[in-house]
Amino acid sequence: MRRHLLTAITLAAALALTSLAAAVEPLPSWNEGQAKRAIVDFVQRVTEDGGADFVPVPERIAVFDNDGTLWIEKPMYVQLAFALDRVKALAPQHPEWKDKQPFKAALEGDLKTVAAGGEHALLELIMATHAGMTTDAFAKVVMDWLATAKHPRFNRPYTDLVYQPMLELLTYLRANGFKTYIVSGGGIEFMRPWTEKVYGIPPEQVIGSSIKTRFELSDGKPVLVRLPEINFIDDKAGKPVGIHMHIGRRPIAAFGNSDGDLQMIQWTTAGSGERFALIVHHTDSVKEWAYDRQSHVGRLDKAFDEAKAKGWILADMMKDWKVIFPYQLK
Amino acid sequence: MRRHLLTAITLAAALALTSLAAAVEPLPSWNEGQAKRAIVDFVQRVTEDGGADFVPVPERIAVFDNDGTLWIEKPMYVQLAFALDRVKALAPQHPEWKDKQPFKAALEGDLKTVAAGGEHALLELIMATHAGMTTDAFAKVVMDWLATAKHPRFNRPYTDLVYQPMLELLTYLRANGFKTYIVSGGGIEFMRPWTEKVYGIPPEQVIGSSIKTRFELSDGKPVLVRLPEINFIDDKAGKPVGIHMHIGRRPIAAFGNSDGDLQMIQWTTAGSGERFALIVHHTDSVKEWAYDRQSHVGRLDKAFDEAKAKGWILADMMKDWKVIFPYQLK
Repeated sequence: MRRHLLTAITLAAALALTSLAAAVEPLPSWNEGQAKRAIVDFVQRVTEDGGADFVPVPERIAVFDNDGTLWIEKPMYVQLAFALDRVKALAPQHPEWKDKQPFKAALEGDLKTVAAGGEHALLELIMATHAGMTTDAFAKVVMDWLATAKHPRFNRPYTDLVYQPMLELLTYLRANGFKTYIVSGGGIEFMRPWTEKVYGIPPEQVIGSSIKTRFELSDGKPVLVRLPEINFIDDKAGKPVGIHMHIGRRPIAAFGNSDGDLQMIQWTTAGSGERFALIVHHTDSVKEWAYDRQSHVGRLDKAFDEAKAKGWILADMMKDWKVIFPYQLK
Repeated sequence: MRRHLLTAITLAAALALTSLAAAVEPLPSWNEGQAKRAIVDFVQRVTEDGGADFVPVPERIAVFDNDGTLWIEKPMYVQLAFALDRVKALAPQHPEWKDKQPFKAALEGDLKTVAAGGEHALLELIMATHAGMTTDAFAKVVMDWLATAKHPRFNRPYTDLVYQPMLELLTYLRANGFKTYIVSGGGIEFMRPWTEKVYGIPPEQVIGSSIKTRFELSDGKPVLVRLPEINFIDDKAGKPVGIHMHIGRRPIAAFGNSDGDLQMIQWTTAGSGERFALIVHHTDSVKEWAYDRQSHVGRLDKAFDEAKAKGWILADMMKDWKVIFPYQLK
């Protein structure tokens, strides 16, 4: 009897939820058009019980790049801005940096010289600012920085500069049984402290680049110490590797904006059954930035060609999006 | 109006579920005693809405060792039995193995010589049998082997030799909002193909040791190829590192059976708020095996002492469990 009552109540609740979900128009900040239609079509196909393209809930995995896909990446990656600010904050403890590259250039705000140092210079900056402390201490450093740092053009906290249409997309997918993951070339520990609050993505669904950590007992208290040694680079061909390592099954939908996402999209769309790929194309030079093939940050070139050849959806930020950032909502 | 109806229905369903959960006696294969009482007390404390020890659902993370905690590990780790069988299966393609250690010993079933080769010999066996194929191909090899291989003493498939009281514990925790993870020294890809079916633990909640993989386009088709190179050893001090890498937050409950789980338990119990640790003590020499301080497989020595010193729960398999394996249920 109790079981019957329970079943009836559960069914009623499920039906009510379903009709409620259907009643709310999804993706309100997306203009009507091919991109929005393709998203909604895909979601309806894979969630239609008994349909030919139905995908069971545990297999509904969607992966999102972060920089340039979920939040702003110009004029420089947010994490690079963080590293440069950290160099300044730590400089008093490192008087030798005044005369030592790439720190000298970083302290002088001379980004050209930093960039001229290439990957090696960048790695030096990252290790000097990201390692040598416990994981808990680093998370606090990140949150303290985000609480005060402002974007140079928009003069707002970086976490305000996330893309409203993509937030709606994350919500829409989760409302349809998807598990949403971040798969970013950025540092996994740089993202985890805030992704749950900002994107609704919990730390265990964040995949990114990492440095090694070591378990230690410090005065009898266990800590994880961040070491100045690369553990994993979650970019380009590393993205499918990171996805497999963390999730262990292939996503059915992938969202990116640059050549760094190409292999992730190839890996996702090569699976059997219904698959979906969308590339955010930065086309709005007024409200944000317009860039693709020639850009150093977020270059979209090979993936642009392959998207056209393979029918991956291109979301044109100017044409497809009504607003860019949440604070622009009326 | 619709919203009010929905709220009422959801509340009714939640209440019905709660009373149903309370009505079903948890952990039926556990004898009444300190271990069972400690588990139930802990779960009640962290789930009691408004209670002093309440833990929100997203923070209810429980980690389980696999070998010797969730399934059998004697007379040898299941994955070692797998590797030895694979050496035999692959021998026709490797005529040189007849005269080359440790393969010669493996083919002759001479485990003493294999063991005498130490870690290096073991690594050679693992790489020769676990690498050099795609991730999909390896998953199939594992499943094919599990479908036919039998345990030498119990003459049953290895996946029958999981611990019934621990299955009930996994179910009980999940029914109370916990996310259950495996954190094993064993290979992550050796476990993922079957953990969802056997333990109800999906691949994204399996953490383990791994070899490196490389993304490749093979005739235009993206694959991940398994390389003969260690990526990560998820054992001892590696367990907290693996937990942090995959989950990004600290578990509130940890379950193990050997010194390999010591640091995982230290890391888990050192967090603030209510914490729980339980060690499965193999005491049943009749129905399974009795072993602890002197055992090569699953040695429980340092963690045994620390459990006593810190009040971690010891589950005595003979006294605390009514049955060991699911097939013994009446």
